[in-house]
Amino acid sequence: MINLNTIYLQRTIKYVTFVTIRMEKELKNKLTDILSKIELFRSFGADQLNKIVSNSSIRFQNYKDDSIIISQGDVYSELLILVKGTCISEITGYNGRIIQIGHLKAPFIIAPAAFFSKNKISPVTIKTGGKDQSGIVQLIVIPGKDLTYLISTSALFTRNLLTIVSEMVISLSERVSFLTLNNIEEKFMNYLALIKEKNREEEIILPVKLENLAAYFGVERPSLSRSIGRLIEKGKIRKSRKGGKLAYIITAD
Amino acid sequence: MINLNTIYLQRTIKYVTFVTIRMEKELKNKLTDILSKIELFRSFGADQLNKIVSNSSIRFQNYKDDSIIISQGDVYSELLILVKGTCISEITGYNGRIIQIGHLKAPFIIAPAAFFSKNKISPVTIKTGGKDQSGIVQLIVIPGKDLTYLISTSALFTRNLLTIVSEMVISLSERVSFLTLNNIEEKFMNYLALIKEKNREEEIILPVKLENLAAYFGVERPSLSRSIGRLIEKGKIRKSRKGGKLAYIITAD
Repeated sequence: MINLNTIYLQRTIKYVTFVTIRMEKELKNKLTDILSKIELFRSFGADQLNKIVSNSSIRFQNYKDDSIIISQGDVYSELLILVKGTCISEITGYNGRIIQIGHLKAPFIIAPAAFFSKNKISPVTIKTGGKDQSGIVQLIVIPGKDLTYLISTSALFTRNLLTIVSEMVISLSERVSFLTLNNIEEKFMNYLALIKEKNREEEIILPVKLENLAAYFGVERPSLSRSIGRLIEKGKIRKSRKGGKLAYIITAD
Repeated sequence: MINLNTIYLQRTIKYVTFVTIRMEKELKNKLTDILSKIELFRSFGADQLNKIVSNSSIRFQNYKDDSIIISQGDVYSELLILVKGTCISEITGYNGRIIQIGHLKAPFIIAPAAFFSKNKISPVTIKTGGKDQSGIVQLIVIPGKDLTYLISTSALFTRNLLTIVSEMVISLSERVSFLTLNNIEEKFMNYLALIKEKNREEEIILPVKLENLAAYFGVERPSLSRSIGRLIEKGKIRKSRKGGKLAYIITAD
């Protein structure tokens, strides 16, 4: 005997199932959409991505602010891609002093090298560093087995991964060479020359804030400002304007 | 009509052909043997390597001392592996000043990241830096098309390559974190702690000469010696001996 309550319950179950399936589908579409925009899946067709998302455990993971995502010394068993908000990477020194290494802005693949290194141990702690407009820090997680599967089946994926890790080597090498230069004036002149070479324009606009550039050089911000002042005094560079922005021109060789 | 000269000539041709084939075979065996010992071909069987060497243009290339192997700004179209002797990598700064970046000891894969980066441009100049006992600097060259073929056909090769480039990211990140620490005493203490963690032993033997460690930190050698002296005076570390070698022990936290 079916009473009204049973009918009501059946309808509710149907409705919940319907909503769940729709939400899951929406989530998968969203996942596919975001993956299509990141470098790791460059040149992948929408069909391929749909298939990958459907047949894997690739998923979204949301974090509150001030969360630790991975701790220094943890085994790195999944690939994490920051897709919303920012993160901070830091290391703890011998005396417990914490040294900030980098600010990561979405989209950013977190420590892909740690996954492929011999010991798979994360050399840094990754913390959330700031929500985006929608109020969350969001990551996409690619579990280890899906990553291994993708590498062994897709030459395109592996190629993209190699390019990403290689670009990291190039930019870290660049940074090492700046840090190795003893003198701040020399660091700044070399930096300007590098930007000039990349952009092929006389007026050089700094792509980062002075504060971040000082951190990149491993020096204090006031020291950097003083060095720039001295370079202008010596006539090695001069200030200029380009599109309303402050620019520098190298005046001497 | 066949005269004695013709017979002699035919014999010579036979002999030269025989010697050439034997030399070629020996060279291929040598190539296979060296490849089997380098990380890039880890876990490859002898048969696989023989096949790769026979079906590709992978070859030895010898250099005299003081040769430039690749110049900063050159397109990096082949993978170069140093197998005998040493090389130096350096960059030329904005004012022509040359900054030495690294000393490369065989076996060493030269700038694999440059090959897989977007612009394929070498960011450094690679020069020969010293012969080995046999008096040569020897490289193995893997032409671009063979490299591309290996990547698209061998998951093992690609995996090895990913590991190598990833290890480079890890060691460069480590170096950046040392260079970023402002104070030499702190650099040295952190370095000791890192070696201690890796070797899991109280007595810490430095794996490099003080001179090289100073260069790694981006400081002058005498400053490093003074800092070590101060750390001993302050009682933060003390000198020790292990297997006849100088070692350090961290005495304070």
